[in-house]
Amino acid sequence: MLTRDIFANISPMDHRYSKRKKDFDAMSKYLSENASIKYQLEVELALVKVLAERGLCPEKAPQEVREAIEEITTEEVYEEEAKTKHNIRALVNCIQRRVSKETRPYIHFTATSYDIVDTANSLRYKKAAEELILPKLKELLQTWAEIALQEKDQVQIGRTHGQHAVPVTFGFTIAEYVSRFGERIKEIELKSQNLRGKFAGAVGAYNASSIFFDDPEEFEKDVLAELDLKAGEHSTQIVAPEPITDFVHALISTFSVLAAFADDMRHLQRSEIAEIGEYFSKDQVGSSTMPHKRNPINYENVKSLWKAFMPQMNTLYMDQLSEHQRDLTNSASSRFIPELIAGLLSAAARLNRVSTKMVVDKANIRKNFEQNKKMIVAEPLYILLAAKGHPDAHEAVRKLTLKAQETDLSLKELVAQSEELKGFWEDFSDKQKELILQPEKYTGIAAEKTEKIVKRWQNEFK
Amino acid sequence: MLTRDIFANISPMDHRYSKRKKDFDAMSKYLSENASIKYQLEVELALVKVLAERGLCPEKAPQEVREAIEEITTEEVYEEEAKTKHNIRALVNCIQRRVSKETRPYIHFTATSYDIVDTANSLRYKKAAEELILPKLKELLQTWAEIALQEKDQVQIGRTHGQHAVPVTFGFTIAEYVSRFGERIKEIELKSQNLRGKFAGAVGAYNASSIFFDDPEEFEKDVLAELDLKAGEHSTQIVAPEPITDFVHALISTFSVLAAFADDMRHLQRSEIAEIGEYFSKDQVGSSTMPHKRNPINYENVKSLWKAFMPQMNTLYMDQLSEHQRDLTNSASSRFIPELIAGLLSAAARLNRVSTKMVVDKANIRKNFEQNKKMIVAEPLYILLAAKGHPDAHEAVRKLTLKAQETDLSLKELVAQSEELKGFWEDFSDKQKELILQPEKYTGIAAEKTEKIVKRWQNEFK
Amino acid sequence: MLTRDIFANISPMDHRYSKRKKDFDAMSKYLSENASIKYQLEVELALVKVLAERGLCPEKAPQEVREAIEEITTEEVYEEEAKTKHNIRALVNCIQRRVSKETRPYIHFTATSYDIVDTANSLRYKKAAEELILPKLKELLQTWAEIALQEKDQVQIGRTHGQHAVPVTFGFTIAEYVSRFGERIKEIELKSQNLRGKFAGAVGAYNASSIFFDDPEEFEKDVLAELDLKAGEHSTQIVAPEPITDFVHALISTFSVLAAFADDMRHLQRSEIAEIGEYFSKDQVGSSTMPHKRNPINYENVKSLWKAFMPQMNTLYMDQLSEHQRDLTNSASSRFIPELIAGLLSAAARLNRVSTKMVVDKANIRKNFEQNKKMIVAEPLYILLAAKGHPDAHEAVRKLTLKAQETDLSLKELVAQSEELKGFWEDFSDKQKELILQPEKYTGIAAEKTEKIVKRWQNEFK
Amino acid sequence: MLTRDIFANISPMDHRYSKRKKDFDAMSKYLSENASIKYQLEVELALVKVLAERGLCPEKAPQEVREAIEEITTEEVYEEEAKTKHNIRALVNCIQRRVSKETRPYIHFTATSYDIVDTANSLRYKKAAEELILPKLKELLQTWAEIALQEKDQVQIGRTHGQHAVPVTFGFTIAEYVSRFGERIKEIELKSQNLRGKFAGAVGAYNASSIFFDDPEEFEKDVLAELDLKAGEHSTQIVAPEPITDFVHALISTFSVLAAFADDMRHLQRSEIAEIGEYFSKDQVGSSTMPHKRNPINYENVKSLWKAFMPQMNTLYMDQLSEHQRDLTNSASSRFIPELIAGLLSAAARLNRVSTKMVVDKANIRKNFEQNKKMIVAEPLYILLAAKGHPDAHEAVRKLTLKAQETDLSLKELVAQSEELKGFWEDFSDKQKELILQPEKYTGIAAEKTEKIVKRWQNEFK
Repeated sequence: MLTRDIFANISPMDHRYSKRKKDFDAMSKYLSENASIKYQLEVELALVKVLAERGLCPEKAPQEVREAIEEITTEEVYEEEAKTKHNIRALVNCIQRRVSKETRPYIHFTATSYDIVDTANSLRYKKAAEELILPKLKELLQTWAEIALQEKDQVQIGRTHGQHAVPVTFGFTIAEYVSRFGERIKEIELKSQNLRGKFAGAVGAYNASSIFFDDPEEFEKDVLAELDLKAGEHSTQIVAPEPITDFVHALISTFSVLAAFADDMRHLQRSEIAEIGEYFSKDQVGSSTMPHKRNPINYENVKSLWKAFMPQMNTLYMDQLSEHQRDLTNSASSRFIPELIAGLLSAAARLNRVSTKMVVDKANIRKNFEQNKKMIVAEPLYILLAAKGHPDAHEAVRKLTLKAQETDLSLKELVAQSEELKGFWEDFSDKQKELILQPEKYTGIAAEKTEKIVKRWQNEFK
Repeated sequence: MLTRDIFANISPMDHRYSKRKKDFDAMSKYLSENASIKYQLEVELALVKVLAERGLCPEKAPQEVREAIEEITTEEVYEEEAKTKHNIRALVNCIQRRVSKETRPYIHFTATSYDIVDTANSLRYKKAAEELILPKLKELLQTWAEIALQEKDQVQIGRTHGQHAVPVTFGFTIAEYVSRFGERIKEIELKSQNLRGKFAGAVGAYNASSIFFDDPEEFEKDVLAELDLKAGEHSTQIVAPEPITDFVHALISTFSVLAAFADDMRHLQRSEIAEIGEYFSKDQVGSSTMPHKRNPINYENVKSLWKAFMPQMNTLYMDQLSEHQRDLTNSASSRFIPELIAGLLSAAARLNRVSTKMVVDKANIRKNFEQNKKMIVAEPLYILLAAKGHPDAHEAVRKLTLKAQETDLSLKELVAQSEELKGFWEDFSDKQKELILQPEKYTGIAAEKTEKIVKRWQNEFK
Repeated sequence: MLTRDIFANISPMDHRYSKRKKDFDAMSKYLSENASIKYQLEVELALVKVLAERGLCPEKAPQEVREAIEEITTEEVYEEEAKTKHNIRALVNCIQRRVSKETRPYIHFTATSYDIVDTANSLRYKKAAEELILPKLKELLQTWAEIALQEKDQVQIGRTHGQHAVPVTFGFTIAEYVSRFGERIKEIELKSQNLRGKFAGAVGAYNASSIFFDDPEEFEKDVLAELDLKAGEHSTQIVAPEPITDFVHALISTFSVLAAFADDMRHLQRSEIAEIGEYFSKDQVGSSTMPHKRNPINYENVKSLWKAFMPQMNTLYMDQLSEHQRDLTNSASSRFIPELIAGLLSAAARLNRVSTKMVVDKANIRKNFEQNKKMIVAEPLYILLAAKGHPDAHEAVRKLTLKAQETDLSLKELVAQSEELKGFWEDFSDKQKELILQPEKYTGIAAEKTEKIVKRWQNEFK
Repeated sequence: MLTRDIFANISPMDHRYSKRKKDFDAMSKYLSENASIKYQLEVELALVKVLAERGLCPEKAPQEVREAIEEITTEEVYEEEAKTKHNIRALVNCIQRRVSKETRPYIHFTATSYDIVDTANSLRYKKAAEELILPKLKELLQTWAEIALQEKDQVQIGRTHGQHAVPVTFGFTIAEYVSRFGERIKEIELKSQNLRGKFAGAVGAYNASSIFFDDPEEFEKDVLAELDLKAGEHSTQIVAPEPITDFVHALISTFSVLAAFADDMRHLQRSEIAEIGEYFSKDQVGSSTMPHKRNPINYENVKSLWKAFMPQMNTLYMDQLSEHQRDLTNSASSRFIPELIAGLLSAAARLNRVSTKMVVDKANIRKNFEQNKKMIVAEPLYILLAAKGHPDAHEAVRKLTLKAQETDLSLKELVAQSEELKGFWEDFSDKQKELILQPEKYTGIAAEKTEKIVKRWQNEFK
């Protein structure tokens, strides 16, 4: 085994964001070069299985290949590649040297390299989605769902443009992310299931396989069925790029939702707002020089990783262009997709840790709410005036707010003083008056909606 | 009407790529500021309709609003905005000044600006998809489908890495794009139908509407149903950004398919390849200085537009981040989505024109095919040798190809000379020998597959 | 003149962000298609001038061409292009039909289209930089410089990670942008001066011009000198793409500085922070439904425009790849550079308007400063303790801050209570003690530095 | 030492593109986490040196720190960070535990984390540029310069739009890249020298250092001078982001030049063009299934790496926005810059290997040139006719070319047959006639220009 000091590595995914061995091993299982080779070997095995079923190769071949691929190491394949200068030919050689003379010709039979490479990648990303990505993301969704439910009645000032607007509840604030994240998880699910394989040969026309099979598309279907994959409608040397493009879009747009959440929480943690906090361990240092600091470093990290990986979508779009039956200019570039997945998983794991320990500072939430309490009711007041027939309610209330700022009187008090408006006031129902007098009741259906959203997603993914 | 010399415009979409008045008008109907305002007025009307149905506002209100919005011009709204500094308040003022005193309070009733803006945009993009984008794209798909069908048997050398590989047919080459483009059209269809509206108020909690309705979500549903839209599961001040993000991804990944096609055709038009040509009108000038030139300017233009618009996806991802119940930093940026749509439509229209007049140079296709005819059979030869039990067929044939290059003998002749190989040859069936002797037969199922793909998509969109 | 309702336009630069006619005309002068054609005609004139100087063409030719180009309209060129399908041949035809038979052959003599197109674009971007972009940016710089100077002593809490750190002054906060923006302006200056022209013919080897001149590079130099431009070291059909790539990088990285400023000001305008405000006109509406709102819409707009245009850099990088002596795939894409410039200018103009009317709320700045005043001194305290020989000062103070949070005592008081620390305290000089007791003095050299930076840039660009 | 199977790594830079140990070690020296830590330790040492010089700390301190930092391993720092949750505090602790009690307080004295982190990064990128990046790039430049010189007289058809245009020489084709690459190398040089450090404390106002120094900017200057760096004009907690943004732009725009070269060579290697080839080793396999293939895999790889890394520029632009005195959202993202550098170096090394072994197929260059030899002369013919007074030379020759295509006659022959044109012909000088009769002479000053460019850059970087 070729080993190396992990801190000699260049990508931060391979040293900094892999400090937890367990997490790294879980990712490496799908995202490393070992994984890449392992899945390629699986595809070569699937081929031989179908050949044996169809009586084209010796019955013993699948067992021989199964045993061979258990022995083959990535290192051996790379050593062979150093000679052949061709990675898949190297892989094939490594299998062939382990099997009987009779089986040997059927290794890679009628296949082109990318029948193996693209099929293997679709398979490992599909598996990674099923077994790693989706479970991790759903875990975070559950954490958020619990916070939303718990805080569904906690009145919080709603903020638009960074300005106090009208009230929501903190649970409703979180429910936004439960809903958006839930939808993204479904999109990842859908697009990962849509990843395709191929067994259509060097230019996609089944040239080689049609020498041996009357039904080369059926043959392709059988091989892919062994791997629980489907073929694309048309291949060239490679699988059509759109399914992986959609899959990566699903991942990146999910990453944006994580970054949006992180940004919101960062700002709620500002010194002047301070509605939430990150639990700080006793020995933790906030700043190398300002011992009093409590920085939202985890949320900052998530946004930062998003900035690092989001632009990769450009690469995917460029990789949709491959000349004629293919050029190889998508080969190196597509080798960086695993790093994006690792980045997303790292961000999600971090958000889960920090969300689980989120501290909600109810006193500060209340204090901030009180700050503009008087003004908040401008909206219901104007709408109620309009509903009661005031012909220019918005303008009337806008002026009232300017006066309120100057005089320190509440809108309610100003209404009472106004010859023009006080008649309208008397027309209001008790419940309507209550909204003006107790702005904290003006939360619409924030609580019910929160509950509904949480229930939906808890059911969806239970 | 505020008019201006079109060549004073800054965006090339507004002068250069709008030279055909008919095309420009078709786009402007959905993509201009006039369209933007028109759809916003439609949303304000839908609101009043539902209020009237529910008996909240005068019965006559919808008719009054309907008449009002027919009169309102964009210019008037902009003049009003110059005073209010708020675009939707300006719009509302323009309606209110046209309706009766009784109706006036119900204009924009309980709504926040983005109930109107986001709903109107979802509506116009959905309509643009249904009535403009999808029909135009399907037209191009049909053009390609016809070429594919017509050329399904035309043998062409397959090219991988720009190198001659094994044969396909030209129809099969085109069928690739029929299939990929067809799938993208379906994705645009799906994602345009998924665009969402909202009527949930300033922070998405239905604060205002819940004063008047016990079922504010039903009320939202009713208003949106008037416009044939659905609500998102959760809104803040704005509709959740993912549906439009997915829609734009569908557009951009479609644009990539057009660019990929354009690139392939450009290269087929190279002087040394010259398999296709663009029909040149009698007066057309190829170069200002080289009168003999026939340049693939239309394909180049399509790729160039793709380069201009593809990176816009980064904007959409950044716009997924909007602080708390929203900031406005997605407002100006999202105003550029129409330009992307116009770019895509311009590219598709151009490709349709040039594809319709595509000249296929069969003589050159044949000449290119002949160039490496001898070598092409290396693949079936190696596979057949392997199938007949040769233990190291790939290597044997690789060496044969080196020899063929040195000696000018065909692989077939070299096989005949080889003590080792000629025994295998005799073992080949007649049909197998034929493939080696007549490489133009080695096209796999290119023709059948082409037919199948074309039929599928002609049925899908007929 | 072909006119059109401006609201029928598709790009928001051509309706929404061009509402001020004066601003639009200033931009259109360099950034429209009219400008594009005008500069191309200038290049054709420069060519004829040099031919006449060298005695190759009739003496009267320059005057004839000068008169011709004054008459030619963009519309005429476009009509001609509809026939020739070639834009520069159309342009040449329009000139030729206006000049004498003797002059006619010397129009466009030895030139290729891109001798004209690329030279004209370099020229107009250079001129746009000199006459429009740089003056506008320097105006904004001066506005900021004045704010910085005025606020140089206004103590403000410094914020890192959104957390209160140690003090700065508000002037110092602004000086950051004076400095960063100043450097960017210099970079734009440098890179605009580095834009290059060419007169090297169809493939850059001076094939045509070397028929007539022994010194074709001298000839190129002369033509470009007429336009105050230099040639690139090597051209193909086009000017090497790096100078324009650098220029656009300079513009975009400048745009980022504007967006960074806007972001900072947006956050300072948050309800809970409220250290600055945007002056609101009496009739201005903050929200269509919440009459009390004062939104940072101008800062939001600037960030939003940045998000729209920043990704265009990807287009420039892709355009660095042009096959062999050039393909045309950079043609349409480079037509969008003017829109980016218009976006940048729009953002700068808006920032200048809003910065000029910036309201600094000193009461709130003070209030926010007071909030963590006690904790701020953790840094100087720890450093002073260290300097006085405390072996583990950071840790000691970190624990003190935890205690301060629990007990409501100041760090100073806790030091006084501490057996371990009070000895150190007595060792402090009076000035040092003062820093701990009056944290508002702990601003380092913020004021001096601000002054120095402001002076430097006021001198640099006076 | 924490070691790991290199194939368990996730980033392809850390397994696939690091197969040559020597190359990897050279990169790792600057680009790994070990390098990152090593340079941070260097900065801490520089600080203590200056403190000692100024008499603030014990004379022995620098030596103690020097010895300490030699012992410290990355692993130890990471273990410490696991406790402190703060990377620089961990680093400081590791030093402090190794030095005397007297020295201890002066470790990191008055510094904030980013005084260390940003200074260290500027330093290592500057060093990486000087010692690794620039030498490697200059090596490739020399290789290209040699090819250009050697091929300066080799006539080659110039290609615009993929169409045969007029002749150049192959050396001139390569000289394009010598020139563009040379200019980029100078830009990297310039921008790497402009990377800045800082020693201005937590918010950039020298709050802490001004307690101890009357001239904190001088103190900063001294510390940075130890490292051969300069300070930025203004810092916040971090160095202003523009210098690194410019540096990365220089790298990426250089990468584009490599990709452009690779693309050109790829296309010259097409089966139908085949003007150059890549030397193939005897055992090398071109395709796993088509033994005859010789694929331009190295050029494809370079373009592919460019597609992977180019979009990272978006990250740098986003990182220009850091709230107030800084947020941390540029921390993780900027950790990926080394990977970009590694990608660029990998591409350059690969291009150097493949350029060194470039095979120029003169026979094919000639064959391609012959293909349109007749037509090539359209350009000089039209210009000469114009110069001799033909009033509509371009149109006359354009028609001639159409006739030439129909009749198989050469333009010369057609001119001879033309009543209208033959008079002009007789007017041509002998040298001019020669150009029409021997198009291979129509190369302008391609050879001289090539020589000039090569000489310039060989001198520039000798």
